[in-house]
Amino acid sequence: MDAKDFGHWVDSSLGAVEAALDELVPARAPAGLGDAMRYAVLGGGKRLRPLLVLASCAAVNGDSFAAMRAACAVELIHAYSLVHDDMPCMDNDVLRRGKPTTHVAFGEAQAMLAGDAMQALAFDVLTPDVGIAPALQARLCALLARSSGYDGMAGGQAIDLASIGKPLDECTLRDMHRRKTGVLLQASVMMGAACGPASPQATQSLSDYGAALGLAFQVVDDILDVTQESHVLGKTAGKDQDANKPTYVSVLGLQAARTLAQKLRAEAKAALAATGLADVSHLSLLADSVVERDS
Amino acid sequence: MDAKDFGHWVDSSLGAVEAALDELVPARAPAGLGDAMRYAVLGGGKRLRPLLVLASCAAVNGDSFAAMRAACAVELIHAYSLVHDDMPCMDNDVLRRGKPTTHVAFGEAQAMLAGDAMQALAFDVLTPDVGIAPALQARLCALLARSSGYDGMAGGQAIDLASIGKPLDECTLRDMHRRKTGVLLQASVMMGAACGPASPQATQSLSDYGAALGLAFQVVDDILDVTQESHVLGKTAGKDQDANKPTYVSVLGLQAARTLAQKLRAEAKAALAATGLADVSHLSLLADSVVERDS
Repeated sequence: MDAKDFGHWVDSSLGAVEAALDELVPARAPAGLGDAMRYAVLGGGKRLRPLLVLASCAAVNGDSFAAMRAACAVELIHAYSLVHDDMPCMDNDVLRRGKPTTHVAFGEAQAMLAGDAMQALAFDVLTPDVGIAPALQARLCALLARSSGYDGMAGGQAIDLASIGKPLDECTLRDMHRRKTGVLLQASVMMGAACGPASPQATQSLSDYGAALGLAFQVVDDILDVTQESHVLGKTAGKDQDANKPTYVSVLGLQAARTLAQKLRAEAKAALAATGLADVSHLSLLADSVVERDS
Repeated sequence: MDAKDFGHWVDSSLGAVEAALDELVPARAPAGLGDAMRYAVLGGGKRLRPLLVLASCAAVNGDSFAAMRAACAVELIHAYSLVHDDMPCMDNDVLRRGKPTTHVAFGEAQAMLAGDAMQALAFDVLTPDVGIAPALQARLCALLARSSGYDGMAGGQAIDLASIGKPLDECTLRDMHRRKTGVLLQASVMMGAACGPASPQATQSLSDYGAALGLAFQVVDDILDVTQESHVLGKTAGKDQDANKPTYVSVLGLQAARTLAQKLRAEAKAALAATGLADVSHLSLLADSVVERDS
């Protein structure tokens, strides 16, 4: 697959994810809640997690309806975490995806509720009355719940919160980021894989790929936080530095962080090669795009 | 069954629920997150929702392991909603279950994260690797997600938020409470019923029972808010009145609210009689305890 074919696949996948989210996130939710949810979810974001789900499902020739639901569910979890993370009691940020953050636009109470409802909706869209085998519904719910809860994303946020202004060694930093960002990216890959038949070897290797990619994503995020402008990122640049948060750049230095990102990309690709799957090109090119992105 | 037997059943069920929650809510969650979660979940609360799950499961001779997981899951959802509802941007309350609220004890950021992690944990405990049939896991997740999201609890909260200081007619008030409290109480009954074989007739009648009981619970809550002292309720009394929130008492008057509670109890019991199930005594006595409670 060449870059042009990959670009087409990304574009058509993004369009399909946007249409599915538009259908699933209800405008009709009462008292403005639906408006806040749609504001937080639609029309923005790189949609990396949905692309990972869809690419992983394609690699195992899986059930594309289930994968699209999983793609929307994991994006709902990601989007809710951003809404809550941006609130005044957390990062107190006003800019996200180039727009005012949800609590700026809708007030803090509605933003908190919208986040809560988005988390519930994630599990709702995984458990439709028809269209996904019940055992797969259960497996997808398990993967999503574990990766977003205390042992995953929420736990990583708690470490992040506790670490402001404190020196962290690379090991602790790695654990924080693995939970905060990495585990949900890895779960995206695993949810896609769960939609099809995959050998234990393929499943394990896809898990390794997801782990390396997840960490690479965060290392690059830390690099961009110090090297890019806010208007390019669509969020406030330099905020980790300003908040005196430990990052890969502050712990390792910029050059070593760049080297680490390349090393992790190589690890991700080696894991893909070990899957034994016929076509992992989308996943491979997603790893490139994670490391080479400039926003 | 007499009152003494029922009392024994309640005591032993509460002990089992507390032990299960103690096991499932992790002290080991990082950076104090586990402490905040355990503070918010353990050692307090009437545990009405878990009792409804267990009583409903018993009525259909269902799978008691699955029912205990469902009981814990629904209580986790209820407890997370209290944590978020008490925060300064929502009700700004400092007292809950006779203790300082979670954000007072742990700070707002940790409280928000603890609530988020408790919601994820609810779906985590419903989807264990072994012990519950996958189809039942999926059904329980669906019931919980729908009842706690935009069309249920979170939607009711949004209506509540939008209605402060506004006159509401009884119909709108009923819709708000149905979503905010009633739907999750009804879902508790349905989750218990899902754990066993239940005819369509029994399932529908249990649903009717849950709807009547859920509304009765809220009517009684509104009555207690004006007739009881804070130290009896374990939360701030009179706060709905102070916040100029519409309640059944403000809309109907105290006497008519009391009459409505009795009418709803009768409806709940009529629905139980229509289930055709051999022993619905626990559910019947739970309806009594909801209407006759003084805190």
